[in-house]
Amino acid sequence: MSKIITISRQFGSGGREFARKLAENLGYAYYDKQILHEIAEHTELSEEYIKSVVDRKPQNLFPLSIGHSFGGGMDYQLQQMQQIFGAQFDTINDLADRSDCVIVGRCADYILREKNPFRIFVYADMDKRIQRCIEHVQGDESSDPDVVKKWIVKLDKDRARYYEDYTGQKWGDKEFFDLCVNTSKFDISELAKSLADFLK
Amino acid sequence: MSKIITISRQFGSGGREFARKLAENLGYAYYDKQILHEIAEHTELSEEYIKSVVDRKPQNLFPLSIGHSFGGGMDYQLQQMQQIFGAQFDTINDLADRSDCVIVGRCADYILREKNPFRIFVYADMDKRIQRCIEHVQGDESSDPDVVKKWIVKLDKDRARYYEDYTGQKWGDKEFFDLCVNTSKFDISELAKSLADFLK
Repeated sequence: MSKIITISRQFGSGGREFARKLAENLGYAYYDKQILHEIAEHTELSEEYIKSVVDRKPQNLFPLSIGHSFGGGMDYQLQQMQQIFGAQFDTINDLADRSDCVIVGRCADYILREKNPFRIFVYADMDKRIQRCIEHVQGDESSDPDVVKKWIVKLDKDRARYYEDYTGQKWGDKEFFDLCVNTSKFDISELAKSLADFLK
Repeated sequence: MSKIITISRQFGSGGREFARKLAENLGYAYYDKQILHEIAEHTELSEEYIKSVVDRKPQNLFPLSIGHSFGGGMDYQLQQMQQIFGAQFDTINDLADRSDCVIVGRCADYILREKNPFRIFVYADMDKRIQRCIEHVQGDESSDPDVVKKWIVKLDKDRARYYEDYTGQKWGDKEFFDLCVNTSKFDISELAKSLADFLK
């Protein structure tokens, strides 16, 4: 059976960078945004539409990647949601079966729970998250710490809602993880290397 | 300034063993039960009495290590509690100032927060905690998993109440830690060695 590491993370914590470096150090496959692409292939829904659903944004996009008619209303949205959840389940299981891998987000810790993944939650102090976001984003508005903080809180909330809808578990509850890492005091590259050495 | 590592832990998680091995690997001083002894020296209260207060057991013990008269009632108990809290604060600060160290429990993560300790929370899955307790304790009653589970839940609850009374913070909330380790899948010796290598 493949060795699987799942990374859940607070927005702005450096979780994605940590995951990528951990995969590099271990020589494992790394799956992140690619998952949306694969879900799109499974469903024929557009990648942009799937992203709007999983990110909990208002769904006023045209859902299909190829144009044909569809019914409207709540039932239809619910049906789409279930279709995306199903495709997410299949995609993540497929990826995990291919080879040793690090998978970021997308409820993979829960979806793969029968495959005994090593589950990591990455978080950080709010001031460090704000600083990190400001460093990584260009533009005047985005460099106002108060604006960035609101943005972070909103994104965490969306992520938590999606996770909780899908899993019925509280997002970020340490009981569902093997390791929870606060990156505020760490050099992320060194941390990824050390953990890779330990897990090898 | 000394390098300080604080370890908070769920009962039966292996947190104490992990802390001791981490200290050995780092060559740091290790403080655990010795803290009660030092508090007793600060206060002239008996070590057993202090333990009953910090463990939240009914306080029907004679409080003083040397016999002399004292007033009774709730005010007196509150006064004793404050005295112990004060002595705990002083003792832990003294220990932390002496040399690099690993300190187990006793709200040290909170007490030393201005000294920037590296704060670890150690926990484990309930079935592993039960198994660990059974392996470490002799006696028929204690080897009944249901009895052991009740005992674990009670001890965690006492620990949480004491911590929350002292700090006003939620016990085990990952936001107040740098690393939270679920020992269920780890070999504790290897984990302690790896973390020591990383922190050196």
